[in-house]
Amino acid sequence: MKIAILGTGAVGTTIATKLIELGHQVMIGSRSKTNEKAIEFVNKFDKNASNGTFEEAATFGEIIFNCVKGEFAIEALKQAGSGITNKILIDVSIPVDTKKGTPLSLIPELCNTNSLGEEIQKTFPNTKVVKTLNTMWSTLMIVPTMLQDGDHTNFICGNDEEAKNNVKSLLKEIGWKEQAIMDLGDITGSRGTEGLMPLWLRIWGATMGTFSIKVVN
Amino acid sequence: MKIAILGTGAVGTTIATKLIELGHQVMIGSRSKTNEKAIEFVNKFDKNASNGTFEEAATFGEIIFNCVKGEFAIEALKQAGSGITNKILIDVSIPVDTKKGTPLSLIPELCNTNSLGEEIQKTFPNTKVVKTLNTMWSTLMIVPTMLQDGDHTNFICGNDEEAKNNVKSLLKEIGWKEQAIMDLGDITGSRGTEGLMPLWLRIWGATMGTFSIKVVN
Repeated sequence: MKIAILGTGAVGTTIATKLIELGHQVMIGSRSKTNEKAIEFVNKFDKNASNGTFEEAATFGEIIFNCVKGEFAIEALKQAGSGITNKILIDVSIPVDTKKGTPLSLIPELCNTNSLGEEIQKTFPNTKVVKTLNTMWSTLMIVPTMLQDGDHTNFICGNDEEAKNNVKSLLKEIGWKEQAIMDLGDITGSRGTEGLMPLWLRIWGATMGTFSIKVVN
Repeated sequence: MKIAILGTGAVGTTIATKLIELGHQVMIGSRSKTNEKAIEFVNKFDKNASNGTFEEAATFGEIIFNCVKGEFAIEALKQAGSGITNKILIDVSIPVDTKKGTPLSLIPELCNTNSLGEEIQKTFPNTKVVKTLNTMWSTLMIVPTMLQDGDHTNFICGNDEEAKNNVKSLLKEIGWKEQAIMDLGDITGSRGTEGLMPLWLRIWGATMGTFSIKVVN
């Protein structure tokens, strides 16, 4: 499949690496086509890796991952233009308020009664936004078995059932067990998963190592 | 031990029941001494159960549980007066914004960059606030073994180490395993645990049964 990854940070390149390994064609999107991180990343692979602007990558992708920093996500997606229309957008980003210090908090307008996932869906109503993978370390996203043989929880939400089913299939291809994927319903569920960030950071402070959240019942 | 439970709802009476069962003397506190729910509760027991005003209960208790609804907590604690001074206050409440509809959200001034636990600590600087048990169903608080033999996570935070150690001992007496109690540091950790509410509600919607959160690492 042709997949676009918007963003050149740790999350974007980690997911891209796994998708290329699985045989997908991946284009990394960034503000500029000459983005050094993107070029450096692409040069690691013989094939199936390329880079371009946000718009070029989105146009290329049948599915698009948003791995841009939360505060820049809407702007990056605007730059992607019609490239994201009628497509599945897997949103992995967290709206961290980088203007405030520690403890890190969320952008006030994008928490509690709203979320970045919802804001993206409202801004781009013809894009099928699916929020997932945003409650864990990037390596764990693509190697769920590094903890408890993959027996921990990855939440997913979004308004379009077919889009969610397609994303679930991709998650299973990446290595997620069916029973580890918990569907929280429509995109307003991203208030919950993005809102986990403050607790996530405190757990990190307490454990100082790779961890995940598991729903037990 | 003499323990005060402020609040006559499901959380307060559930915790009170367990503490009485363990042999502690419990006084339920409410706005009025003639509170029907409190009297009805007390009448279930031959001994060790009594009720009074917030102030009478707090004065009676060596340790105090705040199980009042989040939006009324500060006011109830003001009514408790000097009864809470220099004592451990175990805060179990969540600042749900009942003025807004569903999906339920948190009181805006008490989330993201603040929390009810912190607000109580700031308002009553001579009280040792310890936040715990606030991420689960009330029955699970006192019967942790009803899920996975108690192998799930109960978070705790607070500024006073000695107070936290005392509360950990009480939690263990209730039935919590040492390794299930995760210390998140000072009281600002309650931003994290109170902030779990939106995700908690969505998980409830997805599972429709008793569940808990477990940190796996």
